Amino acid sequence: MAMRIGILGYGNLGKGVEKAVSANADQELVAVFTRRDPASLKIASASAKVYSVDDLPSMKDEIDVLVLCGGSATDLPVQTPQYASMFNVVDSFDTHANIPSHFAAVDAAASGAGKIGVISCGWDPGMFSIARLYAHSVLPDGKDYTFWGRGVSQGHSDAIRRIEGVKDARQYTVPVQASLETVRSGQNPELTTRQKHTRECYVVVEEGADKARIEKEIKEMPNYFSDYDTTVTFITEDEMKASHSALPHGGSVIYSGQTGENKHVIEYSLKLDSNPEFTGSVIAAAARAAYRMNAEGMSGAKTMFDIAPKYLSPCDEDWLRAHWL
Amino acid sequence: MAMRIGILGYGNLGKGVEKAVSANADQELVAVFTRRDPASLKIASASAKVYSVDDLPSMKDEIDVLVLCGGSATDLPVQTPQYASMFNVVDSFDTHANIPSHFAAVDAAASGAGKIGVISCGWDPGMFSIARLYAHSVLPDGKDYTFWGRGVSQGHSDAIRRIEGVKDARQYTVPVQASLETVRSGQNPELTTRQKHTRECYVVVEEGADKARIEKEIKEMPNYFSDYDTTVTFITEDEMKASHSALPHGGSVIYSGQTGENKHVIEYSLKLDSNPEFTGSVIAAAARAAYRMNAEGMSGAKTMFDIAPKYLSPCDEDWLRAHWL
Repeated sequence: MAMRIGILGYGNLGKGVEKAVSANADQELVAVFTRRDPASLKIASASAKVYSVDDLPSMKDEIDVLVLCGGSATDLPVQTPQYASMFNVVDSFDTHANIPSHFAAVDAAASGAGKIGVISCGWDPGMFSIARLYAHSVLPDGKDYTFWGRGVSQGHSDAIRRIEGVKDARQYTVPVQASLETVRSGQNPELTTRQKHTRECYVVVEEGADKARIEKEIKEMPNYFSDYDTTVTFITEDEMKASHSALPHGGSVIYSGQTGENKHVIEYSLKLDSNPEFTGSVIAAAARAAYRMNAEGMSGAKTMFDIAPKYLSPCDEDWLRAHWL
Repeated sequence: MAMRIGILGYGNLGKGVEKAVSANADQELVAVFTRRDPASLKIASASAKVYSVDDLPSMKDEIDVLVLCGGSATDLPVQTPQYASMFNVVDSFDTHANIPSHFAAVDAAASGAGKIGVISCGWDPGMFSIARLYAHSVLPDGKDYTFWGRGVSQGHSDAIRRIEGVKDARQYTVPVQASLETVRSGQNPELTTRQKHTRECYVVVEEGADKARIEKEIKEMPNYFSDYDTTVTFITEDEMKASHSALPHGGSVIYSGQTGENKHVIEYSLKLDSNPEFTGSVIAAAARAAYRMNAEGMSGAKTMFDIAPKYLSPCDEDWLRAHWL
């Protein structure tokens, strides 16, 4: 029988998880939970039903793994511990500084309930984290570099949208190719923020808006843009729709290490047409691992660091050893 | 207290493991075991002693993990099960077709003794295997490609050395760049053996040897060369020593997958100055995992598929989550 998956939150990520689950023969999406009126939500899956988030506590026996697709700022810090006391759960919590406290809260709830709570799942944190851990573990004498992009940063796009006079915006994070090549060559440069990434902004403004002021506000925005070489290009709504509707992303973790005089470069890279769909695919694999680890009697909070790779695969262990080892 | 490592077999790989262990603060090399006369063997580590392989059974309480650095053809099929009944062990068994039976033999011995036996550890099998497993698990709709090189293949070099009139040889496996780029671009081509790799041979011959015959014998050698575009370059002993003493290797696992209409390319690549030193470094990390998993009560045969990434790291879990997640 396929494991029964529930999704809480039906934005870009929730839709990405839905698509990933539909591609997995061993998983079945049975329910999407929403804080909106369930009747107002149309979902892609014919097999699943839409419920109010309030129905969750009564559905403990109908969901094997609940995937939490809310935001890291306010949703997940509350939701993940709350639902880890009822379900195996997976989230994509990515507020780095708060990971230790989030882990502790989820661990307490999940351990108490005998459930698994996988946190911080996706590609960064997630697949990129594993790449860093493997590389450091194998070659202790070395240094890791992470480059992101070329890809859309939703957080930076949102920051531009909050500026007065801006109707819509899309921000691409772009790695500085020369720095990337230096790192790939096995040198261990010290790189500033500016030397690692540039930021390309495409902006649609309200009629009559002061473009010079908007450009200045973007470029001087602390944390988001002031430490980067930033370009601002004003475009029409039609151009935005035609050329910037997709959500591509990707990047590379490059580790440059050595054994005495011998150098070794390890690189893990992703080129993704759709950030939310790939993230959703990682989460679906983690949901499988949560289900299987829980079935073996494990419980508590987990990250990708705690998950033996075999648990992510739908294939049995004999088959894996015979084919992919 | 540092975990105490023993090495059986002091060839290129044994020396690579020795160097890796010396770089790990939590590990100490205490013994190298040899089938030769121990008095004849000089090792790099001052702390470790050289013993006869016959001393192994009497040293169960002095070694936490024994690393087996013999060959896959005849050494490991016997040694790994034999010593897994006494020690936690790690090997780099790489005869693909025999992995299932080797795993079963090691599992029986290790389970019976309450020890861990990690098999098939290195970069392929090993790190590349994990890359394939993660990618397939995340994106079930896709295809993996493995390219090796540019690097020295010891097996192919040895095959050339067995030809009459050949004094020394070095064979480089080289990926076909055009095929690599096609795969990287997200296409899923069907590639023949010839389309994936070429083979470059550097050969030193005996005085008066028939070079034309030797070149023909190399190029027509079944399995090793006949399915590849092979180049043969005759060089002097001095050139061999000056330009071909190192053992670089590397390669890429490229996975091209999709979620519906959206494509995603995952690449894990290695550029290694020294194949045995990097392989030895992976093995040293696996030895740490074997020790720690056994300390938690686990036993039996394991591969990198069964090892949660955290066990490979010397850092504690809180630190890992705070820094590398």
